[in-house]
Amino acid sequence: MAGKTPAIPSPSFFPHDYPPISSEDQGLWIASQIQDWQINHGSLLKDIQSQAAHTVRTYPVGVSVYPTPFPRALFERALELQSIYNELYCAMAEDEQWIFKTIKDLLPIHPLAESLWSIHVKVKDTGGYVQDISAGIFRSDYMLSVGPRTELKQVEINTFSCAGASHANKTVDMHRNLTRMGVYEAGGENSISISSLPINNNIESLATCLAQAHAAYGPQKSKLAKQVAVLFVVQPRNFNIADERPIEYALWNRDVSVPAYRVEFAQDVLDYTSLTDSKELLFHPPWLGTRPPIEVSVIYMRAGYESHEYDDRGREARLRLEMSRAIKCPSLLSHILTFKKVQQCLTEPGALDRFLSAEKAAAVRSTFVDMYPMDGSETGNHACDMAVNRPTGRDYVLKPSLEGGGNNVYGEAISEFLENIPMAEWKAYILMKKINSPAIENVLMSPRGIELGEVISELGVLGGCLWRRVDRNGGSEMLQNMVAGWTFKTKSADVNEMSVVKGFGCFDTPLLF
Amino acid sequence: MAGKTPAIPSPSFFPHDYPPISSEDQGLWIASQIQDWQINHGSLLKDIQSQAAHTVRTYPVGVSVYPTPFPRALFERALELQSIYNELYCAMAEDEQWIFKTIKDLLPIHPLAESLWSIHVKVKDTGGYVQDISAGIFRSDYMLSVGPRTELKQVEINTFSCAGASHANKTVDMHRNLTRMGVYEAGGENSISISSLPINNNIESLATCLAQAHAAYGPQKSKLAKQVAVLFVVQPRNFNIADERPIEYALWNRDVSVPAYRVEFAQDVLDYTSLTDSKELLFHPPWLGTRPPIEVSVIYMRAGYESHEYDDRGREARLRLEMSRAIKCPSLLSHILTFKKVQQCLTEPGALDRFLSAEKAAAVRSTFVDMYPMDGSETGNHACDMAVNRPTGRDYVLKPSLEGGGNNVYGEAISEFLENIPMAEWKAYILMKKINSPAIENVLMSPRGIELGEVISELGVLGGCLWRRVDRNGGSEMLQNMVAGWTFKTKSADVNEMSVVKGFGCFDTPLLF
Repeated sequence: MAGKTPAIPSPSFFPHDYPPISSEDQGLWIASQIQDWQINHGSLLKDIQSQAAHTVRTYPVGVSVYPTPFPRALFERALELQSIYNELYCAMAEDEQWIFKTIKDLLPIHPLAESLWSIHVKVKDTGGYVQDISAGIFRSDYMLSVGPRTELKQVEINTFSCAGASHANKTVDMHRNLTRMGVYEAGGENSISISSLPINNNIESLATCLAQAHAAYGPQKSKLAKQVAVLFVVQPRNFNIADERPIEYALWNRDVSVPAYRVEFAQDVLDYTSLTDSKELLFHPPWLGTRPPIEVSVIYMRAGYESHEYDDRGREARLRLEMSRAIKCPSLLSHILTFKKVQQCLTEPGALDRFLSAEKAAAVRSTFVDMYPMDGSETGNHACDMAVNRPTGRDYVLKPSLEGGGNNVYGEAISEFLENIPMAEWKAYILMKKINSPAIENVLMSPRGIELGEVISELGVLGGCLWRRVDRNGGSEMLQNMVAGWTFKTKSADVNEMSVVKGFGCFDTPLLF
Repeated sequence: MAGKTPAIPSPSFFPHDYPPISSEDQGLWIASQIQDWQINHGSLLKDIQSQAAHTVRTYPVGVSVYPTPFPRALFERALELQSIYNELYCAMAEDEQWIFKTIKDLLPIHPLAESLWSIHVKVKDTGGYVQDISAGIFRSDYMLSVGPRTELKQVEINTFSCAGASHANKTVDMHRNLTRMGVYEAGGENSISISSLPINNNIESLATCLAQAHAAYGPQKSKLAKQVAVLFVVQPRNFNIADERPIEYALWNRDVSVPAYRVEFAQDVLDYTSLTDSKELLFHPPWLGTRPPIEVSVIYMRAGYESHEYDDRGREARLRLEMSRAIKCPSLLSHILTFKKVQQCLTEPGALDRFLSAEKAAAVRSTFVDMYPMDGSETGNHACDMAVNRPTGRDYVLKPSLEGGGNNVYGEAISEFLENIPMAEWKAYILMKKINSPAIENVLMSPRGIELGEVISELGVLGGCLWRRVDRNGGSEMLQNMVAGWTFKTKSADVNEMSVVKGFGCFDTPLLF
C-alpha cells in the first residue's frame, strides 16, 4: 500500500488523435443526449436568482463531452494513497497542540481561523467535547505533473464540506451510458471501451460513511425524541442542492433506512435545535409542530466554511453543534486541517513523521510539490522574494487558507497582488509550485458553450473515516478507514481556476489507459 | 373481472379537514422538499425557448403538495377494467370496416383523419402491412361522478403517444418519500399513511411492454445491420423529454438490455432511416458515420398526433414507418381509435357487443356518460339543439377529435363557438355530458404559484397490449394484455382544462380511502 508512487513515461504515452470526433453532426447528437441525460438525472444547478417557493429554473452543470485520458496506474495509486491520508488526517485532528502551533500566526489576521479556534476554546471552557467519536469525509485533489516522467501531485486536501461527489457520480454514469449506447463508436480505432471507464459509487459510499457514523452513535438517548437521524447543515439559497440531496435520499433508501433531514446554517440551527441537559442535540423542525423532536446522531456540515457565516449567530450556532453529543462530520479541529497553511506545514522536514510510519510518510511526501510559508522565517523570506519577483513568481501559485478554488493568485499576478495588501497579511498565504500538467484535447460543454481545446484534469479522491479520541494528549483509534470514491474535473488548459461555480471546471470521467 | 362497476356512498364519505396543513411554515418546508426532489429526479420541463446545443433552462412540472383522496374501490376497479378495454381496442384495431364506417364522415373535414386514412390506403395499395403483430400503450382516463352514489366515468381513452407515465411515476415516488420523511405528520389524526399511497411502476412497466414487443419481433433479419433496437419517434424541440427518456433508459437498464434510440419526426425519419427490400427498417444515425446501421424492432410513436405534422414529408415518413416490418406501437388503425368520434360511437346501442361479451360490454358501458354525434342523424339533430341552447348546453362539453386536452369547449361557451364555424364542420365534434366530479381541498404547486382550493382529479389507467392479426377480416389474437400502470392528475375545480402543458393540471398521487 505504501512505498514509492509509480510514475509513467510521458507525454508521448498519451493517446493520439483524441477525442474521437467524426463529424459536427455526431457532436451535436452527443450534446443532445448529454443535455437530456442531465435533466433526467438531476445533473443540474439552480439558477438561484429565479428561485421562488413554488418554482425555480435550473440548468445542466458543465461536463466533458468525451471522457479524458488518465493513466490507470496513477488513478489506482491515488485511490490506494487515500487510506494513508485518512490515517494522517485523523491523527492530526486529535493533535490540538500541533494544530495550534501550525495556525496560531493566522489567528490575528484570518477571520475564519479566529472564529473556529475561539469556538473550540469556548467548547473546552464550557464542559468540553462530550462525543469521543468523529467522522470525516475528506477529498485529496491531484493533478498529473509532467517532467521526465508523469507523476501524481497533490493540489490540496479538503476536510470540510467536500463538494462534487454526487455530480461526479452522475457524470460517470452518463459517460458510461453514452458509451453503452455506442455514441463514441464512429471514432473507429479510438473508440471508447466501457471497461476503460471506472465505475463510480460516490453517492452510495458517502451515505455509507454517514450511516456508519449513525450506527456508531448508538440508540436514542433522549426520552423527548421520536427518532434518531442524520442532520445535514446547509447554506441558505444553495444553488448546488443536486450535489447534497442525493446523499440524503440514499440514506433514506438504504436497506435499513437512515432518516436524514436538513437545516440551514445559522439562523435555523438556532431556531430549530436545542441541547438537552445531557447534550443530546434535538431537532424541532417547524413542520413537526408540537410533536416530539428528532434526536441528531450525526451532523454533516455542508455550511460554515466561509468567514462571513461566523457573525454572532453563526458562532452561537456552531458552538451549539460542537457542544452536542452528536457525531460531527467533521469535528471542529479537523475542519481547521483544511487550511492551506496546514498543507504547507506538512511539507516541512519531519512533519509527517509525527503522524505516520517512515514508509507511509514517504508515500504521502512523494505527492507533494514545493510549498513555502510567506512569513518571517528564513524559508518565508526566500518565498516572499520569489513571489514578488515576476520571473520566479511565474512558476508559483499564491493560495489563501480558504476552502475551495477561486481565491488563488497565479504566476506573474502575484507580485502586484502582494503590493496591494499590507505585508502583515502576507503570512495568511502560502506559496506553492505550479504543477505542470499535460494538456490533452477534449470538448467541454457548459453554460459557456461547447469548446474543443486543450484541457487539464484534476482527480479528487474521497476518504471516509470514523475515529475515536482515546486520550486527551492526541491519541486516536480509527474505527473506519475507507476510500469512498472520487471526483474527476476538467477545465480548459488556458484557465487557471477549476471552479465549477464559475463555469470553468466540468465534471468528467477518466478514460484509463 | 367484469360485472357491475362498484359505486360508493357520496360525498360525505370523503375525508374531512383535508389536507392536513398545520402552518404556513410547514407548507413552505414541504414546498422546498418538493422543489429539490423534482430537480434531483428529473420531474422537470424544458423552457424550450432557452434551449441551445450546450445548455437549457428547466423548471419543475406542476404537482400537488398533498396527495388527493380517491376511493380505493374505484381506483382498483379502474385498474381491473383496463384488461377489458385492452381487449376491446385490440379487437377494434383490426376491424378496418368498422373503423371506416365510424370515421368516414370526418375524412372531408378533419385533416388528421384524412392524412392517417390516406396513408393507410397507400400502405394497402403498395404491398400491404408486412407485420402481423402490433403493440399498444393505451390510457383510459376517468373522473369521479357524484350523484346519489359516486361512480367512475370515462373522460376519454388515448391510444397514441400517451404522455404523463414517467411524470406520474416520479410524483408518486415523491409523495411516498415525503410521507416516509414524516412531513405530513403534523396533521395529527389526518396524517397520511404510506400504505394509502399505491406504488407506481409506470416507467418499468412501459419499458416491459416495449421489451415484449422487441422480443416478439425476433432476431435480426437484415445482414446489413449491427444490432436490433427499439426506435422512439419523437417531436423536434420537445419540452417534455423527461416523460419519454426514462422509458428509453429503463430499456437499456433491463437485466437483458434492450437498445433504444430516438429519431425526430419527420425530416430525420426521412434522412436517417431506410427500408430494405424485405421491408426491414434500418436506422442510420449520423453519429454512426459509415458503420453498420441499426435494425428497428419496434417503433414507439411519440410524435405524429397533430395535423400539421402531416405535410408531404410527414406523410412520407409515416408511410415509410408503416410499410416497414417493425412492430408499430401503435398501428395506424389503432391510432385512429383515439378520435373522440370513435369513443362516441361506442356508446351507441349494440356497438360494444360487436367486440365484447355481454358481461364485459356491460362493465365498459357502466363507465360511459351520454355522448352524442353532432351530425344530421336524429340523435345528432337533438344534440345540436342542446348545444346551441345555452341553458341545456351548460351541462355539456364539445370535443373535437384531437389528441389531448386544450381543444374542448365547455358549457355556455359552446353555442357561441358553434355560431362561428361553418355548420358543415360541426360533425367533426362530439357532445359529451359534463362529469360532475366531487371537489376536495388540496394545495397545488406549479409555475403558476402555490394555491389552496377545491380541486378535481383524473385517473388515467395505462394498458399495454401486444396482438397479432390472424386474418384479413378483422380477427386478432392477444399476445399480451397488461395493466401497465396509472397516472393521476389534479387541477383547480374552477378550471375546465386538465392541461399540464398550460400549467393547469398537476401530477398527483391518490390517497386511497
